[in-house]
Amino acid sequence: MDKVVKVAVDAMGGDYAPAQTVKGALEALEERKDIKIILVGQEKAINAELNGIGYDKDRLAIVHAEDVITNDEAPVMAIRRKKNSSIVVAMNLVKSGEADAFVSAGSTGAVLVGGQLIVGRIKGIDRPPLAPLIPTGNGVSLLIDCGANVDARPSHLVQFAKMGSVYMENVLGIKNPRVAIVNIGAEEEKGNMLVKETFPLLKNCNDINFIGSIEAREIPGGGADVIVCEAFVGNVILKLYEGLGSTLIGKIKAGLMSTTKSKIGALLCKPALKETLKSFDASRYGGAPMLGLNGLVVKSHGNSSSNEIKNSIIQCITFTEQNINDKIRMHLEEE
Amino acid sequence: MDKVVKVAVDAMGGDYAPAQTVKGALEALEERKDIKIILVGQEKAINAELNGIGYDKDRLAIVHAEDVITNDEAPVMAIRRKKNSSIVVAMNLVKSGEADAFVSAGSTGAVLVGGQLIVGRIKGIDRPPLAPLIPTGNGVSLLIDCGANVDARPSHLVQFAKMGSVYMENVLGIKNPRVAIVNIGAEEEKGNMLVKETFPLLKNCNDINFIGSIEAREIPGGGADVIVCEAFVGNVILKLYEGLGSTLIGKIKAGLMSTTKSKIGALLCKPALKETLKSFDASRYGGAPMLGLNGLVVKSHGNSSSNEIKNSIIQCITFTEQNINDKIRMHLEEE
Repeated sequence: MDKVVKVAVDAMGGDYAPAQTVKGALEALEERKDIKIILVGQEKAINAELNGIGYDKDRLAIVHAEDVITNDEAPVMAIRRKKNSSIVVAMNLVKSGEADAFVSAGSTGAVLVGGQLIVGRIKGIDRPPLAPLIPTGNGVSLLIDCGANVDARPSHLVQFAKMGSVYMENVLGIKNPRVAIVNIGAEEEKGNMLVKETFPLLKNCNDINFIGSIEAREIPGGGADVIVCEAFVGNVILKLYEGLGSTLIGKIKAGLMSTTKSKIGALLCKPALKETLKSFDASRYGGAPMLGLNGLVVKSHGNSSSNEIKNSIIQCITFTEQNINDKIRMHLEEE
Repeated sequence: MDKVVKVAVDAMGGDYAPAQTVKGALEALEERKDIKIILVGQEKAINAELNGIGYDKDRLAIVHAEDVITNDEAPVMAIRRKKNSSIVVAMNLVKSGEADAFVSAGSTGAVLVGGQLIVGRIKGIDRPPLAPLIPTGNGVSLLIDCGANVDARPSHLVQFAKMGSVYMENVLGIKNPRVAIVNIGAEEEKGNMLVKETFPLLKNCNDINFIGSIEAREIPGGGADVIVCEAFVGNVILKLYEGLGSTLIGKIKAGLMSTTKSKIGALLCKPALKETLKSFDASRYGGAPMLGLNGLVVKSHGNSSSNEIKNSIIQCITFTEQNINDKIRMHLEEE
C-alpha cells in the first residue's frame, strides 16, 4: 500500500457545513483506504453529524476549533484575530506536518490569506494562484489564476504559466503542455496593458510550451492545457462556465419537457445525455489547489456538496504523491 | 409606412464577404420594405454576387470603394491611410447623412477607430462602447462594453451604465432596467481596483437603477438587464458565451447519437430542442451597436452568416426609430 495521506478538512467551511463536509469526509474514507482525515471545527457540531454512523475510527480524528470565519469577514483581520478558527487551526496542522493537506469550502479570501501567512510561500513565488481544472470538449484545462490575485503584474503571470505547466505535466501526465494567455484577439499586439506586457515575457520562457494568445471562445474546445490569466478574468471565466452550463442544461430540460413527443424522446435519451453532461460537471474535478505554497491547500466551492468535498479530499492523494509543490519549488529555484 | 431607413453595409467586411454580406443585404430587403441598402465595396465583386439574382433595384445601391481593411492592419493607421476603403467610405456616408446607419462584419478595431474619428463622439462621451445583447434564461441582457475600450477608467464605466440604461429602456422597452457591475463577489469591498473605484460612483447615480455587483455565474440567468464591465472582461464573457454554448451543444448532440435508444429519442426531441437552443443563438440578436456616436454604427461578428448580417441591418430600423444616440445625447447632456 502507498503512503497514507493525512488530510485536514475544514468541517465548518461552506454553505452546507458541517453536514456536507462531514459526509464528504466519510465518503472519502469509504472510497480510499490510503487516506486519513482530521475534521477540524466545533467538536459538538461534528459529533452530531457523526452520531449513529459507522466509520473507521482509526482513520478519522477530530481537532476542536471553536471559531468560524465567515464570508463577510475581512480575510486578513479574520486570520490574524481568530487563532481558534477551523481555518487557522487546520493550516497550522499543515505547517507543522501533522497534516499533508488542507481542504476548505469556507471563505476564499481567508483560505488565500491563511495559505500565504500560515503555510507560507515557496521562495521565488510572489503570488500563489488558485488553479482549478475546467472541463473542455476533449478533457480538462488548468485555469490559473481563478481568484487569488486581482490586479496582478506581468511577472506574476509568468510564474503562473510555469507552475501551471509543472502541474499539468506531473499531475495530469500531459507532456509539454500547451500554455496560452487569455486575450481578446489572436495577434500579439492585441490585448490590455497587462497582456501586452506579459506576452513577450512568456514568449521568452524556454521552460514552457507557450502557444500565444487564446480567445475565450477557444477555451471550452480545449485550445490550451494551461490557461493563464489575471484573477479577475479567471474568476469570470470559472463562474460563467458554471452559470452558462446550468442555464443551458435547464433550458434543454425544459425544451425536452415541452411536448408529448419530446417527453417520450427524453426518456429514451436520458441515460446517454446524463453521461455526456456529467463530463461537464465542474464538481467532478474537486477543488482548486493553491499553488506555490510550502504545503498543500485546496479550496473547494462554497456551495460544495459532499461529493465535491470527497473529490477535493481524494485529489490531495495525487497532489501529495506527485509532490506538486516540491516540483514547483525545484523548477522555479533552478532558474 | 414609417420612414425608410438607409443602411450602408460593408460588403467587404467579414470572413465570408462579399458572398454572405451581399446575401444578408438581399435577405433584409426581402424581409422589410421600410429599408434601403447601400452596399459599399468593390463594385465588381459585389456585382458578381448580385449577378442573376432578382431584387428591388430602387432600394439597393452600390457605392464603389477600392480598398479593403483587413484584420491584420493596425486600425488607426488603416483608417487614416485607406481613405478609399469600404469602412471609411461607408462611415463618411453616415457622417454626411446619406446613410442612417452602417453595418460591418470587418475589422473590429477599424470600425471602432472609424466610429470615433469619422462619425465622431457625442459630447460628454469619452469612450464609445460596443454593446451587444446576450441571451439569458429569461430574455436578453445588454453587455457593455464588450471590446472597445480596454483599460477603461471608472468614469467610462459610469457612462456605459447610463448609455446601457437608456438603450434597454428605449430599444427593449424595459422600465427601470437593472444595472449591475461585473464583479468576483457580491460584497461592495470585493473586486479589482477598477471595480472598487467604480462601485461607489454607480451607487451615487440617481438616473440609473444600480443593483450592485453581479458575478459571472448570475449573468446567464438574467441577473441584470445592463451588465457593465471593462472591455477585456466583456470580450471574455461574450466569447466564452459563444464557445461554451457551441461546445455544450456539440457534446449533447454526440451524446444523443451515442446509443440506438438515444438516437430514436433524439428524433422525437429534435423539434423541441431546436426551438430551445435557438433562443441561445447569439446570431439571432444581430450585431453590437457602438453607442455614444453622432450616428449609428453596428458591428457584426467577423464570422457572420447572411442571417446575422440581415439581423444586424434590420436592427438598425429600431435604433433609428428610437433615435437611440439622440436619447443618449439628451440624457447625458442634461447632467
